[in-house]
Amino acid sequence: MIEHSQDKLLFTPGPLTTSPSVKQAMLHDAGSWHFEFAQVVKTIREGLLRVAGVGEDYAAVLLQGSGTYGVEAVLGSAIPAQGKALIVVNGAYGERMAKTAAVLQIPHEVFRCAESATPDPAALDSILRANPALTHVAMVHCETTTGILNPIEPIGRLVAEHHRVFIVDAMSSFGAVPIDARGLPVDFLISSANKGLEGVPGFCFVIAPRHRLLECEGRARSLSLDLFAQWQGFEKNGQFRFTPPTHALLAFAQALREFEAEGGVPARGARYAANHATLLKAMGELGFKPFLPAACQSYIITAFGYPVAPSFHFPDFYRQLSDRGMIIYPGKLTQLDTFRIGTIGRLFPEDLVRLAHAVEDSLQAMGCPVPVTPGVTG
Amino acid sequence: MIEHSQDKLLFTPGPLTTSPSVKQAMLHDAGSWHFEFAQVVKTIREGLLRVAGVGEDYAAVLLQGSGTYGVEAVLGSAIPAQGKALIVVNGAYGERMAKTAAVLQIPHEVFRCAESATPDPAALDSILRANPALTHVAMVHCETTTGILNPIEPIGRLVAEHHRVFIVDAMSSFGAVPIDARGLPVDFLISSANKGLEGVPGFCFVIAPRHRLLECEGRARSLSLDLFAQWQGFEKNGQFRFTPPTHALLAFAQALREFEAEGGVPARGARYAANHATLLKAMGELGFKPFLPAACQSYIITAFGYPVAPSFHFPDFYRQLSDRGMIIYPGKLTQLDTFRIGTIGRLFPEDLVRLAHAVEDSLQAMGCPVPVTPGVTG
Repeated sequence: MIEHSQDKLLFTPGPLTTSPSVKQAMLHDAGSWHFEFAQVVKTIREGLLRVAGVGEDYAAVLLQGSGTYGVEAVLGSAIPAQGKALIVVNGAYGERMAKTAAVLQIPHEVFRCAESATPDPAALDSILRANPALTHVAMVHCETTTGILNPIEPIGRLVAEHHRVFIVDAMSSFGAVPIDARGLPVDFLISSANKGLEGVPGFCFVIAPRHRLLECEGRARSLSLDLFAQWQGFEKNGQFRFTPPTHALLAFAQALREFEAEGGVPARGARYAANHATLLKAMGELGFKPFLPAACQSYIITAFGYPVAPSFHFPDFYRQLSDRGMIIYPGKLTQLDTFRIGTIGRLFPEDLVRLAHAVEDSLQAMGCPVPVTPGVTG
Repeated sequence: MIEHSQDKLLFTPGPLTTSPSVKQAMLHDAGSWHFEFAQVVKTIREGLLRVAGVGEDYAAVLLQGSGTYGVEAVLGSAIPAQGKALIVVNGAYGERMAKTAAVLQIPHEVFRCAESATPDPAALDSILRANPALTHVAMVHCETTTGILNPIEPIGRLVAEHHRVFIVDAMSSFGAVPIDARGLPVDFLISSANKGLEGVPGFCFVIAPRHRLLECEGRARSLSLDLFAQWQGFEKNGQFRFTPPTHALLAFAQALREFEAEGGVPARGARYAANHATLLKAMGELGFKPFLPAACQSYIITAFGYPVAPSFHFPDFYRQLSDRGMIIYPGKLTQLDTFRIGTIGRLFPEDLVRLAHAVEDSLQAMGCPVPVTPGVTG
């Protein structure tokens, strides 16, 4: 039996700490063409629809590679040559969508907002009203750059009222934050195995209504990242078109079972929210303040400004925490020095208490006064 | 301890049966941004250069996804807009390269040969002589469609004499068949974790001289499958640009250790050759004949024609073998009914003897006379 404590704990946006039983599911070699494995794939695809709260008029398309591959597959497969995308950006992952569209030579506009604020629906409404050429709107749900949770509900309604197609990068939020994919509606929802569903990395997935997937035929700019062809592969014989990460899929089937046993999105979201609340309280006692205002802060990941102290150097801090078995995440903000602490994965409130103790010990070892003088906040 | 016999044995071109210790290496969660993990990646990249027999003027670029992603990344990143590829085709994977070039709108010609014969260097010489616009030549080393081993040595010399860039899909041959990447020379060699090096699926890799990688800057048709950017990511900070399949990489580091402990390419190739010889002998005693002439048959995978018997149905045969713990592979030839048996992975000659016994039992259970009347051969 593998102990939780053997590995350093990952307070990151993923890959995450997973349960021992999820990892143990990888102790088997499966034949990717074999009917028993096709059954695993079927179970996973059906399970994902349940998590999304949608039925048989939707399909889940699994795709080898990281979440970015899934975003590229959707942009490259959903938007026709004569289409035009509006990409809403308030962080690095929104920027990456814009860059992907640029590389794929997909006509697009960027609606760029402050990294510390959610996009304004009224401004978006004006843009859509003024630009009839826009056919698709793409947005990140939880921008892990800051941890901001973007309001996909009002924006999704707005996009639907304007009869535009809505693409949501729900990478770190799916399974962790309630998303009613049917009620919104989201047309293309993209997420990854190693986030809220607590699988291991190796593939991503797209959930979409079948009628939207049908529209993707012949549009893809890539063979490997062709969403329509990938879907058709599953529909035809239940198989991936190209070699799948079989072990990651076996792990994910187990992760889905554990997700449902825990109580699905409500229970998992509650655990993550408790992790986050514990983190904020404990870090607050050490003098740290989150970068974001509470109103738009997710419970997925939290950015903190560096403390104001001459002896604080992030690489030292990171290594001090690593020596104590805790792995945090560097910042990704363009202007400000932050570090980030993730609260998803197989973590519990007591792990966040342990982390805060390690932060305190690390600061003391570095000669930083505690409580710290908080750095810049948004 | 996990027993070898718990899982069905995979007589396929991959994913393969791997060692218990390779799978056990996945019982850990690693932080993809963490310096300890970056060290694992570094070790793997250096190990791949050793397997290829090349030095520091080459680089190994790891890429998330299946081997097909690697082929697409090379075609899409190496061939400039004003370039033109000659794609040598004698099987499904050559056809896939041609399809990839078509989807990416890369100018290309196809040199299509019979599936049962290796490409004729003299014919290739004429084509290159007559078509100065051709800048790149792409070929599959071992076409697992049939199991044919294409002669990359003479063709590589020819391509070099014509000053064209040589791209080799060495997916199933790398690590299993001696390839002197420097001596050939191969410019872009593509392979995958779950083949001759006996890792688990989740990523592929490209080995190329640094000066060739430098030429790829700005050429890619994709963000995710940009070989130059992916390489630059490793050079900059030792990391993948996007989330890597951490567990598959931990498994691969262990697989490389076991590969070197076994004795590298010579020892692994000898084991696979012994597997193949055992298979041919045992299947021959049951009346089966391989599709290919011996001269071009690899020891990676072997195609056999269906036996001529009214009661032989491949799906039944497959299931009979599966019930006996043996997973074989269906055929992929365009014209003829074949099935395939792979001899790579953590398999030994005695496993092939067991397989042949299971084949005999299965045929008898189906009411097929043994020895069989062999089906069509090439």
